[in-house]
Amino acid sequence: MPILNKDMTLCISLSGRPSNLGTRFHNYLYDELGLNFIYKAFTTDDIEGAIRGVRALGIRGCSVSMPFKEAVIPLVDVIEESAAAIESVNTIVNDGGTLTASNTDYEAVAQLLAEHAVDPALPVFVRGSGGMAKAVVAAFRGAGFDDLTVIARNRAAGVALAEKYGYRCVESDPGPTEAVIVNVTPLGMNGTDAAVLAFDRAHVDAAHTVFDVVAFPAETPLILAARAAGKPVITGAEVIALQAARQFERYTGVAITPDQVARASAFSREV
Amino acid sequence: MPILNKDMTLCISLSGRPSNLGTRFHNYLYDELGLNFIYKAFTTDDIEGAIRGVRALGIRGCSVSMPFKEAVIPLVDVIEESAAAIESVNTIVNDGGTLTASNTDYEAVAQLLAEHAVDPALPVFVRGSGGMAKAVVAAFRGAGFDDLTVIARNRAAGVALAEKYGYRCVESDPGPTEAVIVNVTPLGMNGTDAAVLAFDRAHVDAAHTVFDVVAFPAETPLILAARAAGKPVITGAEVIALQAARQFERYTGVAITPDQVARASAFSREV
Repeated sequence: MPILNKDMTLCISLSGRPSNLGTRFHNYLYDELGLNFIYKAFTTDDIEGAIRGVRALGIRGCSVSMPFKEAVIPLVDVIEESAAAIESVNTIVNDGGTLTASNTDYEAVAQLLAEHAVDPALPVFVRGSGGMAKAVVAAFRGAGFDDLTVIARNRAAGVALAEKYGYRCVESDPGPTEAVIVNVTPLGMNGTDAAVLAFDRAHVDAAHTVFDVVAFPAETPLILAARAAGKPVITGAEVIALQAARQFERYTGVAITPDQVARASAFSREV
Repeated sequence: MPILNKDMTLCISLSGRPSNLGTRFHNYLYDELGLNFIYKAFTTDDIEGAIRGVRALGIRGCSVSMPFKEAVIPLVDVIEESAAAIESVNTIVNDGGTLTASNTDYEAVAQLLAEHAVDPALPVFVRGSGGMAKAVVAAFRGAGFDDLTVIARNRAAGVALAEKYGYRCVESDPGPTEAVIVNVTPLGMNGTDAAVLAFDRAHVDAAHTVFDVVAFPAETPLILAARAAGKPVITGAEVIALQAARQFERYTGVAITPDQVARASAFSREV
């Protein structure tokens, strides 16, 4: 039985279609660490009212997903560089009524590029031009990569994204080359495109490193093909766990270990 | 470990100084009945923003305590008779964005007068003229009592309360008589006035029935004296449990038994 008490600190998420992931991730760690916190996902049709409620109820943290990542920008008090750089917020921390926005997707990608020691001299191909692609491309720029190509079917969005960071945009795949290839589309994600390989086998075989932002399943067709070809991989499961860990630390002030992140991430995926 | 999930329905309370009582009462019954609900107490310095948050986040129920019982009236959509009659709200139910306000203190007192079969022909003396006294006096009026005297040190508030319901107000105790004597002051409550008997022994001995709205402790000096004198009693512990039960039923749509109310009430008092 959940022994809830009046002093528990509430953190929430706001998204168009809530999943159970954050609720399970955060509550798992609250329990393991003995923190007097609870976390629950919400949706809303009044984002302004929801953020006003965050202030009025003293809700400590608010994770923000599609379609609210830009809409919350005028509703907070402080925008950290991680969110300002990409005009996209996924995390709001409430310090006694002052709301500070950041983007831990950006931070997670940046941290993974560093941890995996990906060489900034390598060329990079990023497939996709949506909200998450902004975080990815900005993180490559921040990590010092000079040669990046956005591959986008939506030419307007792709060009805008690429040019913002001094990169180029193409509509179809260049030839296979020893590059970092990055998928930031739903190709390979559970659902209608689950069986689709986001880059074909020739590109995977030629690649230096394969990075798939798709988090469900953890082993996408692209990641499986890359592992089979013996390539270094960065997975969407790593991104989603790490960005949640950074949110957790901001909300609670408690640093967590990679083991704790891994356990909470595994628990959050048991659906 | 609390296995929270995204689909849990949240109910909250709003008060100036939250206690653990409602949080423990409601969560105990959610667990016993296997309901996918959670309940947590909040305070706020922005009642309008808090109620906007209730709407925007789809919070199902909101218990309202001092000092917000009147302030929420213009913020809801529908006022039930129990709240309109006394211009005081302690319960808000959110049905898909429509907020309906009621007052389960009033309902609880009315129900207890009926259950204890208190004779409406008896004279009644009510000590106190604050917010809860409104609910008590209105419930006596609704139950058909014609002879009621408000005893109030605050003469303006006492006269206003008494006259609203066609009763009289006095400043000091009349002589002992066979009456229903009701304490709606903090006399006898845990704290500075814990040892004070709200009516002196002569009044208790002469009384027909003794009713103390003070809920902490469950056995106030007045209730102990009444029991010692063999008088029928109605306790504040009954009022607080019953009003919470009526809130519970409104929030969840699930009717609960007196046994369940008693167990949840006992659990809520383990502080």
